[in-house]
Amino acid sequence: METSRPLPRLTCRAGRFGESSRVLAAEVPVALSYNGTTQAVMMATPDALVDFARGFTLTDGIADPGEITDIVVVETAGGYDLQIWLAEGAGARLATRRRTMAGPVGCGLCGIDSIEQALRPPRILPACTFTLAPSGIAQAMAQLPEGQALHDATRAAHAAAFFIPGRGIVLTREDVGRHNALDKLAGALLAAGINPAIGAVVMTSRLSIDLVQKCVAIGSPVLIAASAPTAQAVEMADAAGLTLIALARAEGFELFTHPHRITDTRAAHVA
Amino acid sequence: METSRPLPRLTCRAGRFGESSRVLAAEVPVALSYNGTTQAVMMATPDALVDFARGFTLTDGIADPGEITDIVVVETAGGYDLQIWLAEGAGARLATRRRTMAGPVGCGLCGIDSIEQALRPPRILPACTFTLAPSGIAQAMAQLPEGQALHDATRAAHAAAFFIPGRGIVLTREDVGRHNALDKLAGALLAAGINPAIGAVVMTSRLSIDLVQKCVAIGSPVLIAASAPTAQAVEMADAAGLTLIALARAEGFELFTHPHRITDTRAAHVA
Repeated sequence: METSRPLPRLTCRAGRFGESSRVLAAEVPVALSYNGTTQAVMMATPDALVDFARGFTLTDGIADPGEITDIVVVETAGGYDLQIWLAEGAGARLATRRRTMAGPVGCGLCGIDSIEQALRPPRILPACTFTLAPSGIAQAMAQLPEGQALHDATRAAHAAAFFIPGRGIVLTREDVGRHNALDKLAGALLAAGINPAIGAVVMTSRLSIDLVQKCVAIGSPVLIAASAPTAQAVEMADAAGLTLIALARAEGFELFTHPHRITDTRAAHVA
Repeated sequence: METSRPLPRLTCRAGRFGESSRVLAAEVPVALSYNGTTQAVMMATPDALVDFARGFTLTDGIADPGEITDIVVVETAGGYDLQIWLAEGAGARLATRRRTMAGPVGCGLCGIDSIEQALRPPRILPACTFTLAPSGIAQAMAQLPEGQALHDATRAAHAAAFFIPGRGIVLTREDVGRHNALDKLAGALLAAGINPAIGAVVMTSRLSIDLVQKCVAIGSPVLIAASAPTAQAVEMADAAGLTLIALARAEGFELFTHPHRITDTRAAHVA
């Protein structure tokens, strides 16, 4: 399926109507099925679906991606079924997890059955020596648009990218949903064999709590976003040891948690 | 709980760091429980929760809001449990629906177990004579910021509003999630006894398929958004009889479906 396509519309400018078309992003149901049973259906842009399957498996805590034995992408009427097959141990664990669930569960936070589960503290990021200079943050934000082909076409897609100091942005994934873009990036990092601890995740969006949880699950020590975080996203980043940078623009950024990974903060600090 | 609060951060501008704080939107788990069983947990901004409970019940198709006998808002550690009680018949229908669900279900689209369900055609909007002039669309977009207190404080919240020609925007609800803002608006319309067929729903966001489904469930014939729709959102609006207007700004708008409700399109049309 196409990731975008033109649809006709009337434009109205200064009271005058005209006929033309606009390229719109595609948003189709993508089912994630494990060992033959659907776990979730996400509305997503239909590209990088193998990355998506691998990344969702990691960030949703379903299995270690190394336990995936096969991913089959099946196009159905109007959507896709991502048929993910797990090794024996992981399959048994998932079956047990499903049986012990008291109620409905869906995609990450949305369907989790209890408030406690929704606020589950993520694992603490392992210690790492990664540091990033302010100039690197500016460079990441400047390079980010280069990988946004879907956004260029539609002006309505989010991107998640991975920035490595000295190398720049090495991977970008897009989707109509920011959480899907991040899951696709997670899978792409795995497929490329890139250690997530050597760089920063960069997002075009606001930061909600689920994006922080996903970034910690990926194992990247720094998360940079173009827009604002929620209060709870900041608190969870703080608890998990994640450096959270938001409102990152060409002219500057705001640093909410764990500033020790950003160089120059101490030297240049003005109270 | 507060809907926003200041958190400390370092700012970096032109390489110089400074310490200050930024007001961030709150995002807490809100469980929707029916007759004692949790149906979904949404991450939402903690205000207008009774509106949210009523609106979610309607737009998720759980029950007719008239079948709600009680809504109790219970604050828990870190979130809220919205305890919604349904009349006997509605409670029995929901119990049956839960039993017949093959797999996990969550919040609207995210957890629905099959691709077919995700693309379920919404009901067709009942015939109505509602029309809207282009000047009304401009007026709605101009008035929209007036109700956005949370966005004023945080620059990071979406709004859903209801516009009635000749009266202007009569209700606005905000949330970190655009779907939650629309559910809160749905509940507020019910509480105020406003017929949704006499006005247009106005959103600050992009339009995904779930927002179209919710608007049709609400029964409003026109949906106006500040940003772009997805291709599937347009197709579903077309199928449901909904007039979809997007990229609405002070200087104009784009009209994707059912233009007959917008006055002047025929007279002023230039090919």
